[in-house]
Amino acid sequence: MILHLVQGTPQESVHALRSMLEAEGLRTFLSPESSRPIVAIVDKVPAALAAALAERPEVSEIHQPAGDWRLVDRSYRELPSVVRIGGVKLGGGQVSIIAGPCSVEGADFMFEAARAVRSAGAHLLRGGAFKPRSTPYAFQGFGVEGLRQLKDAGEREGLPVVTEIMDAADLPAFLDHDVDCLQVGARNMQNFTLLKAIAGAGRPVLLKRGLSATVKEWLYAAEYLAAGGCHQVVLCERGIRTFESATRNTLDLTILPLLREWTHLPVVVDPAHAAGIARLIPPLSRAAVAAGADGIAVEVHPRPELARSDGPQALLPGELAGLVAEARVIAAVTGRGLHALPASPR
Amino acid sequence: MILHLVQGTPQESVHALRSMLEAEGLRTFLSPESSRPIVAIVDKVPAALAAALAERPEVSEIHQPAGDWRLVDRSYRELPSVVRIGGVKLGGGQVSIIAGPCSVEGADFMFEAARAVRSAGAHLLRGGAFKPRSTPYAFQGFGVEGLRQLKDAGEREGLPVVTEIMDAADLPAFLDHDVDCLQVGARNMQNFTLLKAIAGAGRPVLLKRGLSATVKEWLYAAEYLAAGGCHQVVLCERGIRTFESATRNTLDLTILPLLREWTHLPVVVDPAHAAGIARLIPPLSRAAVAAGADGIAVEVHPRPELARSDGPQALLPGELAGLVAEARVIAAVTGRGLHALPASPR
Amino acid sequence: MILHLVQGTPQESVHALRSMLEAEGLRTFLSPESSRPIVAIVDKVPAALAAALAERPEVSEIHQPAGDWRLVDRSYRELPSVVRIGGVKLGGGQVSIIAGPCSVEGADFMFEAARAVRSAGAHLLRGGAFKPRSTPYAFQGFGVEGLRQLKDAGEREGLPVVTEIMDAADLPAFLDHDVDCLQVGARNMQNFTLLKAIAGAGRPVLLKRGLSATVKEWLYAAEYLAAGGCHQVVLCERGIRTFESATRNTLDLTILPLLREWTHLPVVVDPAHAAGIARLIPPLSRAAVAAGADGIAVEVHPRPELARSDGPQALLPGELAGLVAEARVIAAVTGRGLHALPASPR
Amino acid sequence: MILHLVQGTPQESVHALRSMLEAEGLRTFLSPESSRPIVAIVDKVPAALAAALAERPEVSEIHQPAGDWRLVDRSYRELPSVVRIGGVKLGGGQVSIIAGPCSVEGADFMFEAARAVRSAGAHLLRGGAFKPRSTPYAFQGFGVEGLRQLKDAGEREGLPVVTEIMDAADLPAFLDHDVDCLQVGARNMQNFTLLKAIAGAGRPVLLKRGLSATVKEWLYAAEYLAAGGCHQVVLCERGIRTFESATRNTLDLTILPLLREWTHLPVVVDPAHAAGIARLIPPLSRAAVAAGADGIAVEVHPRPELARSDGPQALLPGELAGLVAEARVIAAVTGRGLHALPASPR
Repeated sequence: MILHLVQGTPQESVHALRSMLEAEGLRTFLSPESSRPIVAIVDKVPAALAAALAERPEVSEIHQPAGDWRLVDRSYRELPSVVRIGGVKLGGGQVSIIAGPCSVEGADFMFEAARAVRSAGAHLLRGGAFKPRSTPYAFQGFGVEGLRQLKDAGEREGLPVVTEIMDAADLPAFLDHDVDCLQVGARNMQNFTLLKAIAGAGRPVLLKRGLSATVKEWLYAAEYLAAGGCHQVVLCERGIRTFESATRNTLDLTILPLLREWTHLPVVVDPAHAAGIARLIPPLSRAAVAAGADGIAVEVHPRPELARSDGPQALLPGELAGLVAEARVIAAVTGRGLHALPASPR
Repeated sequence: MILHLVQGTPQESVHALRSMLEAEGLRTFLSPESSRPIVAIVDKVPAALAAALAERPEVSEIHQPAGDWRLVDRSYRELPSVVRIGGVKLGGGQVSIIAGPCSVEGADFMFEAARAVRSAGAHLLRGGAFKPRSTPYAFQGFGVEGLRQLKDAGEREGLPVVTEIMDAADLPAFLDHDVDCLQVGARNMQNFTLLKAIAGAGRPVLLKRGLSATVKEWLYAAEYLAAGGCHQVVLCERGIRTFESATRNTLDLTILPLLREWTHLPVVVDPAHAAGIARLIPPLSRAAVAAGADGIAVEVHPRPELARSDGPQALLPGELAGLVAEARVIAAVTGRGLHALPASPR
Repeated sequence: MILHLVQGTPQESVHALRSMLEAEGLRTFLSPESSRPIVAIVDKVPAALAAALAERPEVSEIHQPAGDWRLVDRSYRELPSVVRIGGVKLGGGQVSIIAGPCSVEGADFMFEAARAVRSAGAHLLRGGAFKPRSTPYAFQGFGVEGLRQLKDAGEREGLPVVTEIMDAADLPAFLDHDVDCLQVGARNMQNFTLLKAIAGAGRPVLLKRGLSATVKEWLYAAEYLAAGGCHQVVLCERGIRTFESATRNTLDLTILPLLREWTHLPVVVDPAHAAGIARLIPPLSRAAVAAGADGIAVEVHPRPELARSDGPQALLPGELAGLVAEARVIAAVTGRGLHALPASPR
Repeated sequence: MILHLVQGTPQESVHALRSMLEAEGLRTFLSPESSRPIVAIVDKVPAALAAALAERPEVSEIHQPAGDWRLVDRSYRELPSVVRIGGVKLGGGQVSIIAGPCSVEGADFMFEAARAVRSAGAHLLRGGAFKPRSTPYAFQGFGVEGLRQLKDAGEREGLPVVTEIMDAADLPAFLDHDVDCLQVGARNMQNFTLLKAIAGAGRPVLLKRGLSATVKEWLYAAEYLAAGGCHQVVLCERGIRTFESATRNTLDLTILPLLREWTHLPVVVDPAHAAGIARLIPPLSRAAVAAGADGIAVEVHPRPELARSDGPQALLPGELAGLVAEARVIAAVTGRGLHALPASPR
């Protein structure tokens, strides 16, 4: 249950209300929302107490989330939340583009990739240093050295960086290298120990949807982050597993407009794993923006045929530039635009 | 195997080639394509014969479809096919809109609905007279009387009509009432006796994808129509069954760009059953056009709360007009436009 | 809503009750159950009327089906129903075995196959005369000639026959050849015109579950048959479509114990299409009987490598005999046995 | 590629062969198999080298796994592997039963539960101390204190214990409390950092199948354990996510006979989460044993209505005893029996 209090309710009244609720054994959270106090009650509220709350003068509205989440519910904020990654914004109506190679593959390579991302007009640089691979014998990424190469390339081009963390034990390395946004991969969406560990790291988190996770489970995973203190969460749809085998996965754009109603979190779409083939990515990216996505995350590689992972689904730099241009036009059709680019270091 | 013959190959040479192949026990089809002769070989071609074919001077190109279809393969035509329904075109680069109520619910009602469809700028009028319903006790449609009401309304507004046929025995009634396009519903996609029966009716067919049909099975069903003589087939994606239960179904837009490569048939998208809720339909329709759909099929109802079926997923007339306007703009972004509207009878 | 009336309620009282309900606009059905009157109300019963019904002296129990079915609900019979096919029983606690080739492939072949089925100890002979095939160019069955060959073989061995009907127009031929049980294939489970047409034919029906049909939809399809007058329905689970591609389909044994609670209809399991490979069939058949199946339907072929369809999933005659023996033992573990075999004609 | 060497091949020849392969850049593993040397080559073997290997006198057979696994492949052992957990065996033809409450809920409670498990004739005691829960506000288990209670109860009844580990950081606590078998939950099946960390712990691992993991991905996860040095892996099927919503999940018994061919690892089946309701568990357990499962894992609770998690799917102690008895009889039908029980401490 989410309580919207009357604007201007003094802090002591808010405190008193929460104390009363906690005394009843109900855990509460106070929204970071600035315009007015909003209180989330985590536990089930007994009917009698619910009725009493509805009568209290400082309570203006009561919302019931559509599922067992609270802090990520749309009603926990006045406006959709805007996540800040380095100097870049994600969410809040405008569109952002995340791009980079699947894997970090060397310092020079990353400089070249970052330059391509910057000149194509994208906002954020991605690249995998720790790679989750289905089999133990596949290339597992450059690890900490990859973090360094990614961050160096991002800094040279003025692009904040996003990269996947698979193990809470690696968190100090991610912070040492000042990774701007921690990515939780699809396979780890319900790795609750990882979610709890990174929730307190003070960094934005990009949370991929699990390959067979329902939207509700996905929001519950985001709630783990929020309950742990992370208010800067971006959801990332990347395709679900269905019976259809003509494509690798099925991009679930159907839930995008529903997510708008259920949560204040921004949602980006990563079409690469669903498409499986690079040339399907531009139309799917257009579709994602048209359906209301707050951003697109794609893979780009200067020489996809040499990529150490997922080459067939990587765009060429020129294709990325085309995709950014199209995203801008489609966004305009829905009354939006692209977010401002980060300042160039040059 | 699809053989593209050299432009200008005389008819006798084409005939001789087919006779030779048929003598080898291979069934062949000749494309209706006008620019040059294209021959499809239905059966598996032995390696030696395949090599010999490649050497023949009149054979310029040999294509292997990605699946066990032939006549619906992209290579069986020079250009994507354009289906003509009444005076309206579907496919070939421009976008068309199909709209109407889920069920035909009376003559006056249909006139009102058709007027709304016309004034919103849509191209074709839909409406169910024979309704496939999961349970035997639900409203099953007005039957032949519904066909009459639908066609009357279409004629008054100058709109060709599309409606579902469930039984080959009803075909004479559909032809008597001059139904412009026969719809095969998702549940009947693999009703092969129905497909064979209507293939020879000389009418365009809108073939919905089965709820759990793979893209390959869907194209095989279209091949049944083509092999039976129906060259005017429109595919209609309407959502597939997945584990996700937050939405009724999952609209599979991922396969749209792949269908472009695999088949020359136009593809329309019906977002209603995937969305399940009317307000999710506009963003999904935008997404479908952005992904390259040749058309959108939606339900519209002047008073959805009174609808005899599927009211919650019907748009209001004003919402339909907005959707048509948005489709036009999104199409423009991808270098397309809307097809010309049918002539108004007034 | 299902009403159990007090045992011995006179027929006039039953009639009066139904008249009263029909006068309220509620459609009713009377169970063929002999021990006491049971009345099903098809339409939604208003709360006030429901309360009044509970008070009536002739009403002893009121049941609410778990879904929108009525006549197939467990409570519509005192005991699980027993379906009689020729001289063979299916359901009611004992186990039956259905076996035969995928396709009828000639008269001599069918005599050989029927002999194998008889000597293995199976109860019913199956074989496809009309074959639903995904592509139009595949072997489509021998048609009416196949019906004759199947029935001749069945008669020679004293085995009732089961075969698939795809088109209501073929029904006279099925009746002319005295086909003992009409099979509705997975692709036609929601072919409602077919269901309605065969419901009145006076023959038992084996209703396969659609490849992506929910259990509820499957029972609704059975309800179409029951509402049309067919009280002799056998459900057949044959695998559902999932993301797993190591096997062709996934046999859904999980719903077997639930079906026991939801419906009085017998349930047989056909493991062939889920397994896809013959050697997986015996363990899956054992599992099906252990989970409570009323029967097993398998494919047998004297020379699988020559089969015109689905050879890889056909058992050899000797393997069938082993499977029947195992079914007997597993059934015994659960306090059951095999049904009596039909009388031998010799 | 798996090489079976001639029996009696001297150790130096095996060593020389591996050195040659490693010099070609190919990683190799030597099977713990005692009867003859078996060598797995992890990387793709060039055609010329493969041909040369086939000619070598010490190579008697070459096997190609059906997927990209090596050490878990059936051919990597002469016989199916038998996993030893405390004094109990799992696999190798006989059947074992794992039982216990979903969550550890107190010391006295665990003693009572363990007594019920022992007296029902089960082999291993399970119970969750660290619980993965979809939402952050649900009961998360007693943690380390739960490990102590579980182990104390196991020791009092002479039952080895199995419990889930969610975080590599907790491994020392699991070893301190001498947990006999580490369970990896479905959500962590592809938590590769966890798999790598526990692979070297010298404990058997029970690896649950992910909710939407293909069999191949599951075996790849097992390969992570094997490559890390863990030769004592038990697979646990627990239901997959499908469109069917009448049951919580769909138990995939179809893959059991295929797993027998693909891997030497034992497979147990946990029917609770698929069934979702306790009364469906006995028939599904029977089915699993009949399909060839090496064991059954079930939840038992003396007072399910008071359970802190998953009460509705817990068996009563008496029901567990019945299930063990049935498993024994079904196993006997397939020529098997139950493994010997661990020695009683009394």
